[in-house]
Amino acid sequence: MFAAQGYAGTSVRGVAAAAGVDAALVHHYFGTKDDLFVAALQVPVDPREILLPVAQGGLDGAGERLLRTFLTVWDHDDTRLPLLTLVRTVFGPEGQRLVRDGFMRIVLGPVAQGLGVDEPERRMSLVASQLIGLAIARYVVELEPLATATHEDLVAAYAPTLQRYLEMPLG
Amino acid sequence: MFAAQGYAGTSVRGVAAAAGVDAALVHHYFGTKDDLFVAALQVPVDPREILLPVAQGGLDGAGERLLRTFLTVWDHDDTRLPLLTLVRTVFGPEGQRLVRDGFMRIVLGPVAQGLGVDEPERRMSLVASQLIGLAIARYVVELEPLATATHEDLVAAYAPTLQRYLEMPLG
Repeated sequence: MFAAQGYAGTSVRGVAAAAGVDAALVHHYFGTKDDLFVAALQVPVDPREILLPVAQGGLDGAGERLLRTFLTVWDHDDTRLPLLTLVRTVFGPEGQRLVRDGFMRIVLGPVAQGLGVDEPERRMSLVASQLIGLAIARYVVELEPLATATHEDLVAAYAPTLQRYLEMPLG
Repeated sequence: MFAAQGYAGTSVRGVAAAAGVDAALVHHYFGTKDDLFVAALQVPVDPREILLPVAQGGLDGAGERLLRTFLTVWDHDDTRLPLLTLVRTVFGPEGQRLVRDGFMRIVLGPVAQGLGVDEPERRMSLVASQLIGLAIARYVVELEPLATATHEDLVAAYAPTLQRYLEMPLG
């Protein structure tokens, strides 16, 4: 339902009705609508938890912390495969909603909020464009030498890019 | 055949045989194997031609020239639709070959060669990761405000990134 109708168009009540159960039962097992959404992503980590240190650590070094968290999740077998499945849906009809509701609202939105940056949508769409491209080049296409680069090499290349997107003056 | 067998695994002779014609006929109508490959991409511009000014203009400002060429092609209706079709194949089984043989070998390889950068594969895989991410965020997912940003805003954000990937010291 999240994929078909988007986050805003989905209600816990609607999910419960489709499952033939009471909304209270869904709340009991899954928590809030945000919790339900994260559960529906079927990734074995809660992005809100692992990103807390990124969002709460201040703007200094935030690009590097965000990148290291991203690489840790993507370079772990248990999380890479579900993430690859998720990324493949980007080109499907539900791709826009998934990126906007999932990646932007759940993953990057709270980071921008925690860091207190100005024009969060603008900065985070720049950040997203580099992270999406890195994920596709390194993990989907397996473009060399990016696919086998060390985390330190990747941090040297990408952390300044992300930091600049978070901090640069916007015209 | 390029998609299934890759650039190296495809010969003009093999294409001619599959089409039931003489190899000379293919050469006559399509030119070299590179020309045939570009024709098979079915994009209405020859990337080798439009990228000449990028490759031959020197390293100074190369990031901006590359980005402006990229945006011109993507923001033109005649070229965006075939490119979108091409980009969607990235997640298919032929995606790796398409990016390696097409994007890297035909598009970014000659740019790196023309600019004379060191470690061209390494630098160009960084450049590719940002351009792929920008294409997906702006044209596939239509992430706002990236999707409706002006070229000047995009140049301000991305040209320094690409320039840095071309010039930064590599460890």
